[in-house]
Amino acid sequence: MIGVMSRWEPNARGRLEQAALELYCERGFEQTTVAEIAERAGLTERTFFRYFADKREVLFAGGVTLQELLVSAVAGDPESAPPIEAVAAALAAAGALLQERHEYARQRQAVIAANASLQERELIKLAALAAALAGALRRRGVTDPAASLTAEAGIAVFKVAFERWVSGTGRADLPQLIREALDELKAVTAGN
Amino acid sequence: MIGVMSRWEPNARGRLEQAALELYCERGFEQTTVAEIAERAGLTERTFFRYFADKREVLFAGGVTLQELLVSAVAGDPESAPPIEAVAAALAAAGALLQERHEYARQRQAVIAANASLQERELIKLAALAAALAGALRRRGVTDPAASLTAEAGIAVFKVAFERWVSGTGRADLPQLIREALDELKAVTAGN
Repeated sequence: MIGVMSRWEPNARGRLEQAALELYCERGFEQTTVAEIAERAGLTERTFFRYFADKREVLFAGGVTLQELLVSAVAGDPESAPPIEAVAAALAAAGALLQERHEYARQRQAVIAANASLQERELIKLAALAAALAGALRRRGVTDPAASLTAEAGIAVFKVAFERWVSGTGRADLPQLIREALDELKAVTAGN
Repeated sequence: MIGVMSRWEPNARGRLEQAALELYCERGFEQTTVAEIAERAGLTERTFFRYFADKREVLFAGGVTLQELLVSAVAGDPESAPPIEAVAAALAAAGALLQERHEYARQRQAVIAANASLQERELIKLAALAAALAGALRRRGVTDPAASLTAEAGIAVFKVAFERWVSGTGRADLPQLIREALDELKAVTAGN
């Protein structure tokens, strides 16, 4: 056990993420190898594979954290809150965390936009996020189709706000963009 | 030209779709070959490839027709109609056409549900549909983020209604389910 512990690298995961993204931006996702990512991070390939299944997953591992955060925020919101408000509060909380990584998010988006298979992976992750949110709402007693529709509406709001945020110049506030997108969704569904 | 015309098979496309779906249900998508599909349809492989790029596309070719229908319906709706109503009318028109193919849609859904890569393809097609709808709304003068949000909301409504329809017993009316899902979305986004 001590042997295993002694190989633990403080913040190895963050260094690998940063190194991978730099390389994907510099030479393209396809052209980058795990060996190069590990070298750039000053770590071994073996360490890389302790954190990530492959070079694609470096870009999507954060989505798991995001999903856990959203699900626990929806679960923890007062039962009396309307479902859409529980989802909006969860999204705003997630947005506040993402806010600190604006430059990372911008670069990541550029890498994904340049590669069709990464775009597909992003869609799959968003669909999984919608399913997880719908599940969290059902556990709060929200029935279908309201649970599915609220979750899908939440993901649509997040997607639109996130796109505006990453294409912005760095001043934009993600939690505020999320709130604005929700207000806009309320207006468009009301037929305004 | 006459030579080309004489090789044209009446409804070859429909026969190939039906044969493919039967085989995917009977023995699984992975285990079915294009040769078997062509044989079951009483056509040649060459004819198959005049209509479809590969055995996966047989399941998704209808999505192109659906997209064209939705885009032209949104474009043709009176300018005075609120965007969400233009999208709802387009979805209901598409639903009325799909209604006639309930058994086909049910079988297709079962095949897709059993295969992860087909599920991914379905997500990609839905994302493309949302992008096409947003584009049609922008050409009507709807600005962003309203255009994107309205399109995403429309696709969420379609997805939820379609899932209820294919999991139903055959009596359900898809255009009506679409209308109900839209009303439900209006209610959940309003915080009811």
